Amino acid sequence: MKTISTNLSHGGVQGVYQEASSACNCDMTFAVFVPDQAKEAPLPVLWYLSGLTCTHANVMEKGEYRAAAAENGVIIVCPDTSPRGDDVADEPDNWQFGSGAGFYVDATQEPYNKHYNMHSYVTQELPELIGREFNADMSRQSIMGHSMGGHGALTIALKNPDKYKSCSAFAPICEPSAADWSKGALSKYLGEDEGGWRAYDACALIQDGHRFSPILCDQGEADGFLDGLRPQALVDACKETVIDLNSRMQPGYDHSYYFISSFMSEHIAWHASRLG
Amino acid sequence: MKTISTNLSHGGVQGVYQEASSACNCDMTFAVFVPDQAKEAPLPVLWYLSGLTCTHANVMEKGEYRAAAAENGVIIVCPDTSPRGDDVADEPDNWQFGSGAGFYVDATQEPYNKHYNMHSYVTQELPELIGREFNADMSRQSIMGHSMGGHGALTIALKNPDKYKSCSAFAPICEPSAADWSKGALSKYLGEDEGGWRAYDACALIQDGHRFSPILCDQGEADGFLDGLRPQALVDACKETVIDLNSRMQPGYDHSYYFISSFMSEHIAWHASRLG
Repeated sequence: MKTISTNLSHGGVQGVYQEASSACNCDMTFAVFVPDQAKEAPLPVLWYLSGLTCTHANVMEKGEYRAAAAENGVIIVCPDTSPRGDDVADEPDNWQFGSGAGFYVDATQEPYNKHYNMHSYVTQELPELIGREFNADMSRQSIMGHSMGGHGALTIALKNPDKYKSCSAFAPICEPSAADWSKGALSKYLGEDEGGWRAYDACALIQDGHRFSPILCDQGEADGFLDGLRPQALVDACKETVIDLNSRMQPGYDHSYYFISSFMSEHIAWHASRLG
Repeated sequence: MKTISTNLSHGGVQGVYQEASSACNCDMTFAVFVPDQAKEAPLPVLWYLSGLTCTHANVMEKGEYRAAAAENGVIIVCPDTSPRGDDVADEPDNWQFGSGAGFYVDATQEPYNKHYNMHSYVTQELPELIGREFNADMSRQSIMGHSMGGHGALTIALKNPDKYKSCSAFAPICEPSAADWSKGALSKYLGEDEGGWRAYDACALIQDGHRFSPILCDQGEADGFLDGLRPQALVDACKETVIDLNSRMQPGYDHSYYFISSFMSEHIAWHASRLG
């Protein structure tokens, strides 16, 4: 693991690291914040999955997570949103597909399945690396994300319910199979058969019997992408299931990090109470 | 006043605005965060002056000031660091002079005195605008800043002691007349006669009898610019004066916003307790 940078912040270390990924078949960069308490004991891990066009850096700079992570003694890991590199198939002018738009799937279609395996990377390869390189208790993990990363957090929790203690999302894409901005990417990564998309659609996963609790979602009412995010679809899918979903509409908030940072401390404290 | 953007954040409004400045003879952009409490009553104003190369945006994105500003009911105003525009004299390849490097002086030298009048802009013109456009109590102002902006906060407070209730700084340039990275700018803005620089040098102002209290300074011990910042020179200048200076060295912290954001909440609470 190569260290790109480290900065002391809120008493802990905000680092950026890089490692060759076998899942994604390229070098992958990620951010890890380790609170000072990790010097004394292994700390639980909270994953933050970012949205379309982001790298690890957006939330690291604008997410305001370090104060609450330090206070609660939680390691925060922020992966990139896709594989990257000269030999990674991409559509540079398309912000909804390719670089910055991995959608947290394991691609099944050529040529994308060579690199676009973000589900395996985030759920298996990177956790193993974090467990080796940091004083992390990998038996205590939770996951959160924003927009496309909220979709990632929801689907990953639903598909791996024993791996995570809690799941939260800021303005998640709740039903990507039905939204114009995600259908193109799903068809390229997973093929034209929409049946194959159900494994990466939170609402479809719930309809197909997957369960995860608890889930906390915050959605800004002034979010310009609201039509494609479909928070009500997730509420409807969870109805008459055992899923403990707290879906909150937040008046006046938009889709930006000004919104995310406003509720970040509350989300971290909520996860921390479940991570023990 | 032109509104560039507004985003709801931490219950308040983070705005970016632009207005033609008569002091700087160009359009000037600035950021203002107004907590929700301003709907009920006029709020005190805390100025944040940024460092070399910055605009209003760096601290707005990375400074993590909104949570504490909202909690304490303080308006935060973040001006730009210099005049800007096609007709503003500049040295684009010099990060220590011109655009992004106004040093909060009123220039006396041609051609810079046509635009580089940041002292008047920050102490007179922009406060008048803030008082007109926002529900701000301009009888309650405090000032803080980082690096070149820490120099700005210290010199502005010392030169205008009745205007501000408190002054704080993150890694301020304490003695710009003596530091290689500021002497070039001072000589161009203020002339070769170093006597004229004393009006914009915190240590020289104190030696010349200016007084301000209280002052809080935080300086990272791992700051790569430490040699040019000279926190000890400020401590020495304040010795045997009435100035109430709390100068703290913070082990392990560098010059970045990872450092600033770590102590931002504490600085805001400290100012708020003096702003009433």
